[in-house]
Amino acid sequence: MPEAVIRPASEEDLPAIVAMLADDPLGAARESPDDLTPYRAAYRQLAADPNQHVMVAVRDGRVVGTLQLTFIPGLSRKGALRSVIEGVRVHADERGSGLGTRFIEWAVERSRAEGCRLVQLTSDATRKDAHRFYERLGFTASHVGFKLAL
Amino acid sequence: MPEAVIRPASEEDLPAIVAMLADDPLGAARESPDDLTPYRAAYRQLAADPNQHVMVAVRDGRVVGTLQLTFIPGLSRKGALRSVIEGVRVHADERGSGLGTRFIEWAVERSRAEGCRLVQLTSDATRKDAHRFYERLGFTASHVGFKLAL
Repeated sequence: MPEAVIRPASEEDLPAIVAMLADDPLGAARESPDDLTPYRAAYRQLAADPNQHVMVAVRDGRVVGTLQLTFIPGLSRKGALRSVIEGVRVHADERGSGLGTRFIEWAVERSRAEGCRLVQLTSDATRKDAHRFYERLGFTASHVGFKLAL
Repeated sequence: MPEAVIRPASEEDLPAIVAMLADDPLGAARESPDDLTPYRAAYRQLAADPNQHVMVAVRDGRVVGTLQLTFIPGLSRKGALRSVIEGVRVHADERGSGLGTRFIEWAVERSRAEGCRLVQLTSDATRKDAHRFYERLGFTASHVGFKLAL
């Protein structure tokens, strides 16, 4: 199997990315893969912001993973830059292939190269497998993640 | 007691902000209120980024609270804009005054006005009082927050 390539997402990758966002127990109810209009608008906003990095993993010309890495400057921790990982998805065919590990390790290394002192992410409390996965990669489940839908 | 004013932080507010960041069981070990150099550099980066809003609450000419509100565009949830609240501090003298509630409600309203569909934050698992506070304000502790220090 050829090695997957990790690269910035292009607008042409949107159908494959949205299909992965929707192919998920939580995502199924909140995505609209049949209407890409809102995703195209969001993609353009993301592409124009130097702190936003929507990435894809591509194997054999096929998009098989996605994540969003965001850099957030801040005052706390002596003005530390931090990164946030959101929207992590690996194609159903690729689960167990080690791609998820490689992708998160890529995001951690990219954060280190940018000068971040902290990488953070939240994972839905029901995603127990994901929690074990992040702990194996060295993350600590030190926080409670609160959300308020508007 | 006059009503507190919520406004964007200026560089002149940094000593008061950093003093509040440091006056905290977790912050004491990770801030350097005697050397503002790293905070000034971070402040300038924040001030230049239209998605970052470092705010202060001022009562009687005195800075008594701070928080950072960050807007993050994304593809998931049909290209939803979300906001993240970080670095919330209320001066020790003001605890119990309702300022924290007013400040978070301000951040929620500002997020709604910006078109966010979600407001999120993480709180250290040891801050039990903070958890009750966010739940009273309508937030749901639906996620686990993972961090990796670099």
